[in-house]
Amino acid sequence: MNLVLVEPAELAPDGSVRLTGIRATHITTVLRGAPGQEIRVGVVDGPVGLAEIRSASSECVELRCRFGDQAPPRPPVDLLLALPRPKVMRRLWAQIAALGVDRIILTNAERVERHYFDTHILDPATYRPLLIEGLQQARDTRVPLVSIHKQFRVLVEDEIDAMCPHGRRVVAHPHQGGSVEDALGSRLVERVVLAVGPEGGWNAFELALLASRGFTPMGLGPRTLRTDTACIALLSLVHAAIARHVSSG
Amino acid sequence: MNLVLVEPAELAPDGSVRLTGIRATHITTVLRGAPGQEIRVGVVDGPVGLAEIRSASSECVELRCRFGDQAPPRPPVDLLLALPRPKVMRRLWAQIAALGVDRIILTNAERVERHYFDTHILDPATYRPLLIEGLQQARDTRVPLVSIHKQFRVLVEDEIDAMCPHGRRVVAHPHQGGSVEDALGSRLVERVVLAVGPEGGWNAFELALLASRGFTPMGLGPRTLRTDTACIALLSLVHAAIARHVSSG
Repeated sequence: MNLVLVEPAELAPDGSVRLTGIRATHITTVLRGAPGQEIRVGVVDGPVGLAEIRSASSECVELRCRFGDQAPPRPPVDLLLALPRPKVMRRLWAQIAALGVDRIILTNAERVERHYFDTHILDPATYRPLLIEGLQQARDTRVPLVSIHKQFRVLVEDEIDAMCPHGRRVVAHPHQGGSVEDALGSRLVERVVLAVGPEGGWNAFELALLASRGFTPMGLGPRTLRTDTACIALLSLVHAAIARHVSSG
Repeated sequence: MNLVLVEPAELAPDGSVRLTGIRATHITTVLRGAPGQEIRVGVVDGPVGLAEIRSASSECVELRCRFGDQAPPRPPVDLLLALPRPKVMRRLWAQIAALGVDRIILTNAERVERHYFDTHILDPATYRPLLIEGLQQARDTRVPLVSIHKQFRVLVEDEIDAMCPHGRRVVAHPHQGGSVEDALGSRLVERVVLAVGPEGGWNAFELALLASRGFTPMGLGPRTLRTDTACIALLSLVHAAIARHVSSG
C-alpha cells in the first residue's frame, strides 16, 4: 500500500477521515505510522495528496488530508480480455489495476467456458476491493471501468467503437503477428486497445472479426504464456511503447 | 502444457516412454490424446520433438518419441532477484521459467526478511516441478539454474562476475533510472543480467554496490508494482529489447 485510498464519502469537509480495518492495520503495523507523521493518500477517482496522522491505533487511524487540485489522468490503455478461469481472474484484478488500464472489457469467446461467467469473481463486491488494492500499490486513484460481455460478436461489431473510440488496436495471439513495435508501428501512439485471447487462443472467426475492426495481430515471440503472465507482459510492453512515443514525440 | 517434458532417465533407447500421473491425465483429458495422434514432447534440458501416442488411459500413456538433434539455446537473460516472500516466490517459479531465464540468482538484501530463506519453497523438490510446469507452458526444455545466496555483498563482489561473465547489467529500482531502452542503450544487446530488488526496494549501499559492478538503474515509470508483477513486466521488456536488437542487428 504505497498510497492509502479513501472513498469520497469517507472524507469530512475539512479533509479529516477515520479509517478502520485493513487500512488502519496497515498504517500502524506496516507503515509504523504515529501521530504527526505524514503519509500519501488519495481519493478514489480523485486527486492524490498527503495526510497527517492525528491519532493511530490498530483499530482506528485518524487522518487530516490535503489533496491537490486534479485527479491523475486515466491510463491510456484499454484491455479487451477473453474471460480467464476464475482462479486466474482473481489474481489478475489487482495486477491489471496496478499496471494501469482505463477499461477492462471482459468477453466471451469460443474457448471460454460458459460457467466462468457465473462466478462471484465478476461481482463488483469481489473485484472492486482488488482493483483498489492494485491502485494503492501503484499510487493511482483511477478505478478501471469494468464491463462484461457474453456476446463477443455484438461487442466487437456494435459496441467496441463507442466504448473505445480512440487508440491503436492490437490483438495478441500466440505465434502470430510481429512484436509490439511492429504492431504499433513507428507512428506516435498515445492510446492502445489491447485484446488478449483465452488460454487456447482466439478462433479463426474471432481473429477475423477483430481484424475487420482494425485490430493488428501481435505476438510475444515463440514462448506461449499463461493468460495472466501474458496479460502482464503485454500491458507492460504496450505501456512502454506509449511512454517511448510520448518521450520522443 | 503445450509441450510434454520427459526426464532423460524416463526414455527407453528406442524413444518409448510410459507416463503416469499428471502428464497422463493431461494428455488424455485436456489434449484428448488417443492412440495414433501426435503430441509435442521434449527432453528436460534436451531437444524437442514429436511423440506418437501408442496407448492412452487416464492412468498411463505410452508414447514413442522422435527428437531433433539439438536442445534449444538457453535463454539470454539472467535474473538476480532479492528473495520475495514465500507466497510470492511460489507463484513466480513457473512464470519465470515460462518467460525464459538462464540463471535465477536469489539473494538476501536489507529488506528481505531472514525467515524467507527457511522455507520449503527454496527446496528443489518444491521448485523444480514448478519450473518444469513453466517450461511445458512455454515449450522450452531448459531448466533455469537456481542458486541461493544469503550474503548479498559476497555475491556481488566475489561471485557474480564468474556466474554472469557476459551481458549488459541493469538494476530495477522504483522511481529511478530511465526506461529499459535508456538503460540498455542503442547498442546491440545479446544478453542481459536483470537485478530486481525486494518489495521495499534496494537500500543505498546495495544500489551503490550494484552500480560499482556495472548495473545501470532502470525504472518502470511512476507506478510501483508488486515484486511478482514487476518481475514479469521487466523480464518481458528485457526479452523484447533483446529480440528487437537481434532482429535489427
